[in-house]
Amino acid sequence: MTPTLDSVEYAIGHRFAKRELLVQALTHRSHSTPHNERLEFLGDSVLNCSVAALLYRSFPELKEGELSRLRASLVKQGALAEVAMRIKLGSHIKFGEGELKSGGERRPSTLADALEAVFGAIYLDAGFDAAAKVIELLYQPLLCCIDPAVAGKDAKTELQELLQGRRLELPRYELRATRGEAHAQQFDVDCLIPDLGISSSGSGASRRIAEQEAAKRVLEQIKNK
Amino acid sequence: MTPTLDSVEYAIGHRFAKRELLVQALTHRSHSTPHNERLEFLGDSVLNCSVAALLYRSFPELKEGELSRLRASLVKQGALAEVAMRIKLGSHIKFGEGELKSGGERRPSTLADALEAVFGAIYLDAGFDAAAKVIELLYQPLLCCIDPAVAGKDAKTELQELLQGRRLELPRYELRATRGEAHAQQFDVDCLIPDLGISSSGSGASRRIAEQEAAKRVLEQIKNK
Repeated sequence: MTPTLDSVEYAIGHRFAKRELLVQALTHRSHSTPHNERLEFLGDSVLNCSVAALLYRSFPELKEGELSRLRASLVKQGALAEVAMRIKLGSHIKFGEGELKSGGERRPSTLADALEAVFGAIYLDAGFDAAAKVIELLYQPLLCCIDPAVAGKDAKTELQELLQGRRLELPRYELRATRGEAHAQQFDVDCLIPDLGISSSGSGASRRIAEQEAAKRVLEQIKNK
Repeated sequence: MTPTLDSVEYAIGHRFAKRELLVQALTHRSHSTPHNERLEFLGDSVLNCSVAALLYRSFPELKEGELSRLRASLVKQGALAEVAMRIKLGSHIKFGEGELKSGGERRPSTLADALEAVFGAIYLDAGFDAAAKVIELLYQPLLCCIDPAVAGKDAKTELQELLQGRRLELPRYELRATRGEAHAQQFDVDCLIPDLGISSSGSGASRRIAEQEAAKRVLEQIKNK
């Protein structure tokens, strides 16, 4: 018995009959074979299906497109990494030395992949329903505060729909400046809502990121009004 | 008891406890509500997960990327429509009048969507394992003749990899002619393999299609050599 894996089992609420599956799910490619890449392939689709079923049952009034959008927001790397960090999965992953030194255990993509692999491992260990139960448990904190009208929408889309709903003019985005060297440029963008007399600015490594940032700040201003 | 639905149940090997789920799965949006769009969302992910699990078990030597490619080739619209036609699903779908007149029951996208909705309905009726069993049964004819080295690859990719494997020069594609009016153009493309003294031509509604067609014929020539 490895005590460290006991704590993972406790956190996910599943005790493995075949402990070697959990070990494989927590073995990064840089460490040794068998590693977790094939399990990640399997777990990705187990996660997708479990979340689809959860959403289908939780939101009987939503259309197909809205369900897809909600699911995408829940299974994306950021959401997975957040869950993985909450259960402290990173410290249980076995890495090769180089990967460990470069901070692999804190990399969101690595955490997300390992968590998906754990879902795949549970599927193989005890079947779909067991994996779906674990996924439902781990996703509870994300699901309970989901707002189906907003979740999964980017700030620009949300802002546009909000303004259209109030029959207001659409936002205007203006590039104010680009800064820095060519390989590390920063963009400054203004988002203007003439009808409301509101504006805000955002910065980022691409024009799109800067626009999203600016839209997000305008949204906050509107909501706090 | 609707006799027509009995034959669907027989073809898929699942008897519904809640027959209304099957009815909904076979109701196109153009006919009435509740229609099959939400079930299709659910069924799509049930299919993805079932096929992922089947491939994971059937091909223990394949890597994650190869499994993804194989799965994509099995769950794509064309493969689904092929299965749907084999079990004559089209004649059981309820359409609105306009949709029926425009040939909805023979449209591959409509057939594929309805089949996915049926998978979603089975999941709700009897759980994941029941749906996975039906999917395995229906996909058997496609799975048994799969060649993991080839499946899912388009002809151009397959040809390129074959030539690279033999350390030969890559194929050259040359546009020979475009024919027809602007709205219905046909492209004629030659695919040339200088090192082997082989060439072949293909035609299609786009340059890409014509190239794929030409590559396919060259592949056949090489394989028959």
